[in-house]
Amino acid sequence: MKSIAIIGSGAIGGFYGAMLARAGLDVRFLMRSDLAVVKAHGLRVRAPFGEFRIERPTAAATTAELGPVDLVIVAWKTTSNRELPQVLPPLLHEGTLVLTLQNGLGAEEQVAAIVGAERTLGGLCFVGINRTEPGLIVNPVEGAVTLGEFGRPASARLQEIVALFKRAGIKVRATDNLAEERWKKLVWNVPFNGLTIAAGGITTDCVLADECLRKLSRELMTEVLQGAAALGFAIPESYAEFQMSRTPPLGAYKPSSLLDWQAGRELEVESIWGEPVRRAAAAGCALPRMEMLYFLLRALAAKHAKR
Amino acid sequence: MKSIAIIGSGAIGGFYGAMLARAGLDVRFLMRSDLAVVKAHGLRVRAPFGEFRIERPTAAATTAELGPVDLVIVAWKTTSNRELPQVLPPLLHEGTLVLTLQNGLGAEEQVAAIVGAERTLGGLCFVGINRTEPGLIVNPVEGAVTLGEFGRPASARLQEIVALFKRAGIKVRATDNLAEERWKKLVWNVPFNGLTIAAGGITTDCVLADECLRKLSRELMTEVLQGAAALGFAIPESYAEFQMSRTPPLGAYKPSSLLDWQAGRELEVESIWGEPVRRAAAAGCALPRMEMLYFLLRALAAKHAKR
Repeated sequence: MKSIAIIGSGAIGGFYGAMLARAGLDVRFLMRSDLAVVKAHGLRVRAPFGEFRIERPTAAATTAELGPVDLVIVAWKTTSNRELPQVLPPLLHEGTLVLTLQNGLGAEEQVAAIVGAERTLGGLCFVGINRTEPGLIVNPVEGAVTLGEFGRPASARLQEIVALFKRAGIKVRATDNLAEERWKKLVWNVPFNGLTIAAGGITTDCVLADECLRKLSRELMTEVLQGAAALGFAIPESYAEFQMSRTPPLGAYKPSSLLDWQAGRELEVESIWGEPVRRAAAAGCALPRMEMLYFLLRALAAKHAKR
Repeated sequence: MKSIAIIGSGAIGGFYGAMLARAGLDVRFLMRSDLAVVKAHGLRVRAPFGEFRIERPTAAATTAELGPVDLVIVAWKTTSNRELPQVLPPLLHEGTLVLTLQNGLGAEEQVAAIVGAERTLGGLCFVGINRTEPGLIVNPVEGAVTLGEFGRPASARLQEIVALFKRAGIKVRATDNLAEERWKKLVWNVPFNGLTIAAGGITTDCVLADECLRKLSRELMTEVLQGAAALGFAIPESYAEFQMSRTPPLGAYKPSSLLDWQAGRELEVESIWGEPVRRAAAAGCALPRMEMLYFLLRALAAKHAKR
């Protein structure tokens, strides 16, 4: 596991790629908008432990220029996954593993459709990283990453990647049940990434200060748990309580989707809201509030795209 | 029934007041923002049958100046009803009737709390009237008004008012069940007045063109029917179908709440969404989508008010 390609060099891809490059690994970045700036000035990172810069990262606008690697990390937004069938193949040799660090549900399936389920891994990032300007990644708090195999318990090869991340200074753990972890992450993301947008662009403290939106947040969490249960993942109500209780300390927090929305970027409507609703419905579980939030965000995103 | 006071001289109050004044009745307008313009240039109306002007309407900024009348028509937005306890008493003699032509649920109760249930009447306006500039009321299509007693079948005195409206050229009918009529009007208003705002400010044709919002509109209608049924009003599903089918011909229509929203005016959140949800809940009937729409509109309105 010596060479790594990073697909998408925004906040997540830029940060983890830079951390791995700083640890001496051969990291190659697929970059679009930031390419010229990074070529000229390097990739800068502000992490909780201090600042550093990757002076001359390997970066290109096409994966053909990057060539085959041992590990591909998919870190752009799920809305770009429609390009994966063109983007992934030039990065693959016979043993290449592909790890998606994307939000919501469905990314592993999209990767697996191209490279096969047996080469697919997934992960979740519990962080608040931002790309504040081209070539500059800001990570104010030490977050954590959870990595897992797609549809299988953690394996030896997964533990190798975990060890690699650890050596690079990344806080990381392995999970035996990636799919359940994805539903657990939705417990917070569905209400707070969604309502901060649907209520007109407000921070999480304002959602909590509005007694009706606070009640609705908690009800949406219960619906996420119902959806998870319908798919065989028993997440207790106490987990929703924990997710509610961890929110006030975040203060006037802007979830990543609200940042996307306010910056005019595409929303990950399908992976965070649409796909969970569809999977629950396919298992016979109707989630009325979550579906309504999905419908509204989908319409808001469509109107956004037309501007 | 010779003297009539109009509380609120926006679109509804301005139009019906002008029609009654044109018929020779003693109509007195409580006006705020439009008072100076109307004093100087009269009250102008563009109706389907042509244009007319009330040259020198009786108008004042306080009801004390208007004095007691036989009939009070409450026609401002329900958000102003908090002022009724001050505004109504100067208009009352011992036989004064008060007719509210306002949207949603709760207006009759608010009037009755001041003048008594036995003097309270209500009505619904199925129109698309606009006050396009100070002192100018535009009514592009002939609408209709339904009038009823509060909590009683239509009475002789109600029929007198119906006859009065008819003589003034207003299309009008009496109902024996005003409360049910209010729920029937909500069948269209709840989804379309609400979703056109919650989806970011879109016209009704765009709601229908989005298959998800269209589905949600129909589901919201079903919830209104469920709420009505819980309160004893049996409105058939076919009525919801009729309300869906009458919407495409409206084209790129802006419901009154969307016009309020876009003009920065207060939304009638409580009367159209909040009160119906609360009454259904009190009758043991939870309406999750309608409550969620209420919560979102309430939050959007609060954010609006802060601007």
